[in-house]
Amino acid sequence: MKFEKPFPPEEFRRRIHDVKQRMERAGLDLLICQDPANMYWLTGFDGYSFYVPQVVLVHLQSDMPLWFGRFVDVNSAYITTDLPRENISSFSDHRLQHPELHPFDDLCELINSRGWGSDRIGVELNAHFYTARAHQHLVKGLPNAKFSDSRELVNWARLIKSDLELVYMREAGRLATHTMHTAIANLKPGVPQHEVVAEVYRAQTRGVGGKYGDSSGPPLIQTSEQTNAPHLSWTDEPLPTSGLVLMEFGATRRRYCAPLCRTVHIGKPPAEVSRLADVIVEGGDAVLGMAKPGTVVEELNAVWQDILKRNGYMKIGRSGYSIGLNFPPEWGERTVSIRPGDRTILQAGMCFHFQSGVRLQDFGAAISESFIVTESGGERLAEVDRRLIVVE
Amino acid sequence: MKFEKPFPPEEFRRRIHDVKQRMERAGLDLLICQDPANMYWLTGFDGYSFYVPQVVLVHLQSDMPLWFGRFVDVNSAYITTDLPRENISSFSDHRLQHPELHPFDDLCELINSRGWGSDRIGVELNAHFYTARAHQHLVKGLPNAKFSDSRELVNWARLIKSDLELVYMREAGRLATHTMHTAIANLKPGVPQHEVVAEVYRAQTRGVGGKYGDSSGPPLIQTSEQTNAPHLSWTDEPLPTSGLVLMEFGATRRRYCAPLCRTVHIGKPPAEVSRLADVIVEGGDAVLGMAKPGTVVEELNAVWQDILKRNGYMKIGRSGYSIGLNFPPEWGERTVSIRPGDRTILQAGMCFHFQSGVRLQDFGAAISESFIVTESGGERLAEVDRRLIVVE
Repeated sequence: MKFEKPFPPEEFRRRIHDVKQRMERAGLDLLICQDPANMYWLTGFDGYSFYVPQVVLVHLQSDMPLWFGRFVDVNSAYITTDLPRENISSFSDHRLQHPELHPFDDLCELINSRGWGSDRIGVELNAHFYTARAHQHLVKGLPNAKFSDSRELVNWARLIKSDLELVYMREAGRLATHTMHTAIANLKPGVPQHEVVAEVYRAQTRGVGGKYGDSSGPPLIQTSEQTNAPHLSWTDEPLPTSGLVLMEFGATRRRYCAPLCRTVHIGKPPAEVSRLADVIVEGGDAVLGMAKPGTVVEELNAVWQDILKRNGYMKIGRSGYSIGLNFPPEWGERTVSIRPGDRTILQAGMCFHFQSGVRLQDFGAAISESFIVTESGGERLAEVDRRLIVVE
Repeated sequence: MKFEKPFPPEEFRRRIHDVKQRMERAGLDLLICQDPANMYWLTGFDGYSFYVPQVVLVHLQSDMPLWFGRFVDVNSAYITTDLPRENISSFSDHRLQHPELHPFDDLCELINSRGWGSDRIGVELNAHFYTARAHQHLVKGLPNAKFSDSRELVNWARLIKSDLELVYMREAGRLATHTMHTAIANLKPGVPQHEVVAEVYRAQTRGVGGKYGDSSGPPLIQTSEQTNAPHLSWTDEPLPTSGLVLMEFGATRRRYCAPLCRTVHIGKPPAEVSRLADVIVEGGDAVLGMAKPGTVVEELNAVWQDILKRNGYMKIGRSGYSIGLNFPPEWGERTVSIRPGDRTILQAGMCFHFQSGVRLQDFGAAISESFIVTESGGERLAEVDRRLIVVE
């Protein structure tokens, strides 16, 4: 039995070359990556073990990255990466979740043993799981190092997807289509929310077209007036005989995720619901039309906000974000946000989730799209009708 | 439609009272909790939004905790908690995932506005999502505060489960039983791994006995020689016509999780596999027998290691950990570890996952149990046969 790696070695080499160039520009000798998506992107490491300290190290003078993690996860690194065995090392398990010790005490030793203890070291100060205590142990254990925040250096390197990555993004989009259609087919008055979610999980995982699905963050579903609270999970509440259902979930291929929201009305929708949905679709269409190389990100937001405003609505907060590779609980990349002030210039191959949710006082709606920036505008990853879906 | 809160107000009051006493002993005026499990335990807050900065504040002089998070998640706080509206506030969305700004800049303002800017403040330095950058913004924004690491203060307060919590733990255990039986029924030669996992997700979520399931971390499955890499996820590899299958997953009721591992052999197992499984069962039985109030945690590990050693095996790393409430990606509580040096004295109502995985060079096995400490020993939460399960 062989683990099928998601990318060939040359793809990882290209990424590491790119990251090293960014490190040089940022004045870094060594980069410590704890973000599980960055670890995967740099090496292919795909163990579900990121709730314990583990990192990938990239050093300007080292050909291949190093993996450092828990002893029990070393085999996952052997299996899922092409790293040479001497680049894979582990911490003593007694340091795990210990009141005084920390696995990074061993990481300091590893860094010193490589002669990198006085280097300029970039750390992911704002990565999930890179805790403040972890940072303290690192700073204390490497008193001669010059630490700085890498400021999502690898996340930014991930912004434009390669052709191989776009294959997974499109597969994820097809899986999102299939999963949303499955979900909608299960929306009937009286069916408990959790039964719909069970079918969503099943469809997400079984996949479509011979391509299975990986884990995404949990599916979200809200009904009726709770559609104004977008991050509630499911309960066993029966679906209303007449009312709104809002669903958001991702579909994931080899850790590449296409999220999608759709709003469904069971029974004849009130005029105010249909009207909001129509405006959301109009706004989304305008954004997709503009999503070409050269457009500035904040212009996407401006056109969307204008359409909302013209129709008497408003949305507080960003209207989308960069997507690609990630592990639960998040599918965003923590780089570009579609909002005022984001002056990122779109380039072909960037991917975004245009998160069109608008929450009014008593209800909310969202008809979102995950898309790729192309010369002809945003290429939708999923193909689910862009409208308020009415279930009779 | 009403959100059914997981606990009555008096349960939360009791918890907050307990935490305030611990804060006094630790010399803290204010505690900032970012761990999503701690936020839930203190207030019931149950939005799936912990991938953005959000916290619960407990102050000695304040009756009820405060919730601080993203604007779009305020409605989730209204719906899922009993906090008064004036205790719920949000940050400006433009600070989210911004290269220079941070939501905690607003948190500093909130703390100052309450007159707490010079207080002794405990923070969860090692909580997932409490990033090093978040900590820097807090320290910079509150120059007169005296910060210290709360050292999992709330996690430790969660160690002994209340009767109401044990109801959920036992329900989670029944769900784990149901889910494992479903999984085993799907293990047949040639069935791809992901199809088994799809049925696991479905069973976990549909629940059993009228009790639905919440999200757990993703199910893990390994086969053949990869059973020595415990945190690999699924692929579409067909199950072997003859060989090992190792599964680990949780089952979760209202965020209370009972994890479980079982090892299955398709076809007649080799003697070395049966032998390892028998020893694991013997060791687990010994641990469960000793899991009574008064036993010291490291003694559980010692009896287990002795049985392994006597049979020519060894296990590196801890053999279990405290469980209860948590959100993906983790189901442990990050407090007690069953290993040498952990001198925690067992008390009735503590819950553990005895993680019996033993990984040899070419294969691994695990037959684990989640249990409650009781006067008559460990009460198993799930009831799946404690043996190597052979599928013909």
